Amino acid sequence: MKFVAQALGLSEPAARKLEDRNILREAVIKHPFFADIIEAYNLEKKFGAYEEGTLIAKTNNSLEVIRGYPKIRRALVLYPTLKKHFKGEVAIEEKMNGYNVRIVKMGSNLYAVTRRGFICPYTTEKARLVFEMDFFRDNPHLMLCCEAVGDESPFVPKDIYGSGVHFYVFDIRVKKTNEPLGVREKEKVAEEYGFRLAPILEFADVKRAHEAVIEAVEKLGRQGREGVVIKDVSMKRPPVKYTTSQSNCSDLSYAFRYFNEYARDFMISRIVREAFQSFEFKESEEEFRQRCLRLGESILRPMVESIRDVKEKGRVAEKSKLRFYNLEVFELFKEHLRRMGVDARFSEPAEDNGSYIVFMERYMMSTTDKISNLLKGGFW
Amino acid sequence: MKFVAQALGLSEPAARKLEDRNILREAVIKHPFFADIIEAYNLEKKFGAYEEGTLIAKTNNSLEVIRGYPKIRRALVLYPTLKKHFKGEVAIEEKMNGYNVRIVKMGSNLYAVTRRGFICPYTTEKARLVFEMDFFRDNPHLMLCCEAVGDESPFVPKDIYGSGVHFYVFDIRVKKTNEPLGVREKEKVAEEYGFRLAPILEFADVKRAHEAVIEAVEKLGRQGREGVVIKDVSMKRPPVKYTTSQSNCSDLSYAFRYFNEYARDFMISRIVREAFQSFEFKESEEEFRQRCLRLGESILRPMVESIRDVKEKGRVAEKSKLRFYNLEVFELFKEHLRRMGVDARFSEPAEDNGSYIVFMERYMMSTTDKISNLLKGGFW
Repeated sequence: MKFVAQALGLSEPAARKLEDRNILREAVIKHPFFADIIEAYNLEKKFGAYEEGTLIAKTNNSLEVIRGYPKIRRALVLYPTLKKHFKGEVAIEEKMNGYNVRIVKMGSNLYAVTRRGFICPYTTEKARLVFEMDFFRDNPHLMLCCEAVGDESPFVPKDIYGSGVHFYVFDIRVKKTNEPLGVREKEKVAEEYGFRLAPILEFADVKRAHEAVIEAVEKLGRQGREGVVIKDVSMKRPPVKYTTSQSNCSDLSYAFRYFNEYARDFMISRIVREAFQSFEFKESEEEFRQRCLRLGESILRPMVESIRDVKEKGRVAEKSKLRFYNLEVFELFKEHLRRMGVDARFSEPAEDNGSYIVFMERYMMSTTDKISNLLKGGFW
Repeated sequence: MKFVAQALGLSEPAARKLEDRNILREAVIKHPFFADIIEAYNLEKKFGAYEEGTLIAKTNNSLEVIRGYPKIRRALVLYPTLKKHFKGEVAIEEKMNGYNVRIVKMGSNLYAVTRRGFICPYTTEKARLVFEMDFFRDNPHLMLCCEAVGDESPFVPKDIYGSGVHFYVFDIRVKKTNEPLGVREKEKVAEEYGFRLAPILEFADVKRAHEAVIEAVEKLGRQGREGVVIKDVSMKRPPVKYTTSQSNCSDLSYAFRYFNEYARDFMISRIVREAFQSFEFKESEEEFRQRCLRLGESILRPMVESIRDVKEKGRVAEKSKLRFYNLEVFELFKEHLRRMGVDARFSEPAEDNGSYIVFMERYMMSTTDKISNLLKGGFW
């Protein structure tokens, strides 16, 4: 705890108090797989300049501060929001639909840190297979901010990005300060070290960026992709995100399938996005009706499916397929989920080409109980 | 305050404490129109056996306790809910879509008490024109629980019930105890005194009530009506309500038009109803798509309309047409709305056949501000 106090510029008792207030949490499981880390804590909430999800770790020979990935603000109308927020040239990048991880070197190994500031064993195992050490040896002070995507994602499984887990780098930042490289510099580094980048779709003058984004978003939407992040090329101003209607609806499907697990605000905010997009995209009546149907279906189909699941199978669960290269990582991952408060069941690992496939069922207790009670004749 | 303490069985200091905790509120404006009432308070929250909206009033010669109208629980699936809750014969009554008022005699006049326990000047004026005194002279201990509907409703204006304001009696209860008459007794009384009753659609054995309700609700839905209330004929068990898809969607339209004024739960609960109805009504794929489109449109159309209103007219407002027979009542009603925290503007009264027509615009400040900020380029 002393090292945390030192990192945050606090006295040790003040740091202890943060732990009592649940602002500081233990962030790593002690295990040979995480051998470099002696102790680690993360921030559950923003604290001063330090973002939520900041990880503070003590290794054999260093004190690491891995800043949390900053929240990206969302435009509900592109015009005038982009024009007001940016100046000069912006980059329009594809926003991949997976989960955000920061890849860092600590001690002599790589680690994948989740948005909330935990070291995820599953993602760390995959990151160590994908990323070489050369970049980190040359730049020990940097972290790769990536979207982890694919059909073997334990958190956001999607088929559209192909099989397995892939890492798309979208920012390169200084671990300790969160200072980002400019977009062109990031491109150069990615080329040099062979990283996959979240596609940079276009560079545009901010004056016409809203038009370029509308075009890009309509195209991405037809491909079932999530949306874009608009960035100041120099990264001096914070990025802004904007999503496709298909992605808003897909979020809604997810949220309404498990409607009692999710906050009401999650749903309403996505519905509001659709209204503003419809307003700004100047749709025909037929396009508007298509949007209404898409919205209505994305809400009702998953709910009816969940009601049927409870009626027929007694419960609602989210299924995903995982792959482990080392069964110890499987054990570690189970412990990781327990700590996150996730109630999941797993199939026996099945060998597949030197690795192991495991099917995970995450039990959605709150939605199951609510539906079950209503089906038995309970009142709302 | 002493009379309130007496009515609730409290000491006077205890009653004062309830006022300090905002459980007891002053409930009437002093005015010759309300001449019979010396003082009145209502309950903002349930207190012991006394329902939220209970009115306690002191008149020249009596102490009145007008019990709040009890909340009616809602079935999300008709089977097995009805079968579980009722026994023997039930009445299926139409649920009218207006606002709930209790008509009572206090002193020598009639008063219309709103759901929250206030005496509404607008509704009182109309009630005095509609109801004769004979029923109340014969039954001073009873109150008429009515739905006030019509296109001149200040709260829920609807064209489907014709022009003006109409009162449909759905329960007759003992003011002081909330004990209801049985359904057949209510029918007899209504016939004797010439009240309009909320239509009793059918008497059914509870074993097949769910089928009868599905049939009734599909028919009412096609007519744009709200739904049904299912009642134990003896009224020994509390009633249960169930609404049409059209009414759920119409509520959603209203809520999403003024999306920042309304609680998130209001919206989600209505969406959940649609899912359970779709599940229970065993729809064809085409009927299901129709429901999805109806749901999607009921959400998006009003929101886009509100965004346009802010863009073009600077604000979102709800318009309604009111009629006053006495301009003093207009002044009283304005004061009533101010006390309710409603921000409304009014046109000059225009004479119409011995009465006055006034157009009311209720300004939706929260939704207006939110949309306005987003249209100017603010972030969500």
